[in-house]
Amino acid sequence: MTGSWICEKHTEGYAVKWKIKDILHEEQTRYQKLAVVDTLEWGKALLLDDALQISEKDEFIYHEMISHVGMCTHPCPERVLIIGGGDGGTLREVLKHQQLNAVDLVEIDERVVENSKRFFPALSCGFTDRRLNLHIADGVHFVKETSSRYDVIIVDSSDPLGPATPLFNLEFYQDVYKILKADGLLVVQSESPVFYGEVFQSVYRQINTVFPLTRVFLAPIATYVSGPWSFTMGSKKYNPRELAKKPGDLGYLKYYNEGIHRAAFCLPLYIKEMLKN
Amino acid sequence: MTGSWICEKHTEGYAVKWKIKDILHEEQTRYQKLAVVDTLEWGKALLLDDALQISEKDEFIYHEMISHVGMCTHPCPERVLIIGGGDGGTLREVLKHQQLNAVDLVEIDERVVENSKRFFPALSCGFTDRRLNLHIADGVHFVKETSSRYDVIIVDSSDPLGPATPLFNLEFYQDVYKILKADGLLVVQSESPVFYGEVFQSVYRQINTVFPLTRVFLAPIATYVSGPWSFTMGSKKYNPRELAKKPGDLGYLKYYNEGIHRAAFCLPLYIKEMLKN
Repeated sequence: MTGSWICEKHTEGYAVKWKIKDILHEEQTRYQKLAVVDTLEWGKALLLDDALQISEKDEFIYHEMISHVGMCTHPCPERVLIIGGGDGGTLREVLKHQQLNAVDLVEIDERVVENSKRFFPALSCGFTDRRLNLHIADGVHFVKETSSRYDVIIVDSSDPLGPATPLFNLEFYQDVYKILKADGLLVVQSESPVFYGEVFQSVYRQINTVFPLTRVFLAPIATYVSGPWSFTMGSKKYNPRELAKKPGDLGYLKYYNEGIHRAAFCLPLYIKEMLKN
Repeated sequence: MTGSWICEKHTEGYAVKWKIKDILHEEQTRYQKLAVVDTLEWGKALLLDDALQISEKDEFIYHEMISHVGMCTHPCPERVLIIGGGDGGTLREVLKHQQLNAVDLVEIDERVVENSKRFFPALSCGFTDRRLNLHIADGVHFVKETSSRYDVIIVDSSDPLGPATPLFNLEFYQDVYKILKADGLLVVQSESPVFYGEVFQSVYRQINTVFPLTRVFLAPIATYVSGPWSFTMGSKKYNPRELAKKPGDLGYLKYYNEGIHRAAFCLPLYIKEMLKN
């Protein structure tokens, strides 16, 4: 396979190609096509249904941002729920918070967890942590049925095409609201405002219907489509723009810091206007 | 040409494809291959030596950021020099500043100006402004020989491959320093830290050698490579992170605002570390 390319066609008019050195693994799981490739410049990468999910070189940006912005907005996130995130990257970041007592991770596809353990040890290192309860289950059902109550819920999903589709619905956000404590908050990856504007707008509208405080924050992630990537936070009490605690005691972070927390919420007008209607 | 794609190979391992509806114009100028295409999703786009320079849909991000961050750092930018920028987008933004008395624009390739006038009226609208002095000339020579002195100099160049190469040299920045007033400042586009890290680092090192204050600011620009795009400011006196004036009187801006100004200077550690050595 040396010298061949993988091509992601993101829209009718835009595609990205990554040169790969090798295909390390391919399988059809119960839910999706899963592949692990070794790219020429970005290290190993995980693909689900031919869409690049993470690369070794820049996964830290996505995982630090989806985790620490919410975890530092909450003053004491003791109990956390991660929906999706079967590669373990978000779990790894969440576990850096000393206040954490317990984290439930609900991944629908066991093969994502197993392949991450095999091919991505730097991502999956948290799966042995004693604070983790791993559930191989449907996140939508889990949220509907659990009796647990959470400080922070993180929806670390793939795009709304395959098994992740029901995670982008109003009913799901309503169920999430019910299992958050009275001062709890939700963080979701909400796609590219530039390339997937309708999904981005829909997620914001729905979360804004359910939560008293809804805010978007941004980060450019090189292995996703170009332009900014978005995350949306729904909060019952705490202002997402304010850090409840300094990130200094989280150890070595390569992307997230106090300045980045505040900067990520500063939106250009073209994105603010997308959130108006 | 309906349905065909243009492909930009940015590095050995990364390429981007844009579907085009039509090739509107192609010519070999004295300096480079110039093409204007109509893309499926991004409107008309200008290509130089097969590299996409601007698209109608998102050129505002690049042009607002390369212009207003510097122009709002300086309390009274009366006299401005733009090196490159033959499409007119930077000129259009600079002209929004009421303090401006005179702007010199030095573009090496007259055909860029002529084709922008023909195909991109929304970019080239400033070419008829009475404050403009247009010079079809080599920016390196102009800077060496002019007797004018400037408040703000903006280097709006293409990549350091074709005719823009000498604009990325220490000697050029030293010459720029000499023709800036005692409180003047320089802004350059300094490429992608992620994909063109060596150029980004080299520009920072060189400007930092010449100027007492050197700062990097970032913006994600969808039609360039993915991840953040960088700009570097060298300033003799004013702190680039502080706005000397509010951008409110500049009219309708779609990207730049006061929050974006400050946020753009908040760097993640992985980029700070690139600037250390």
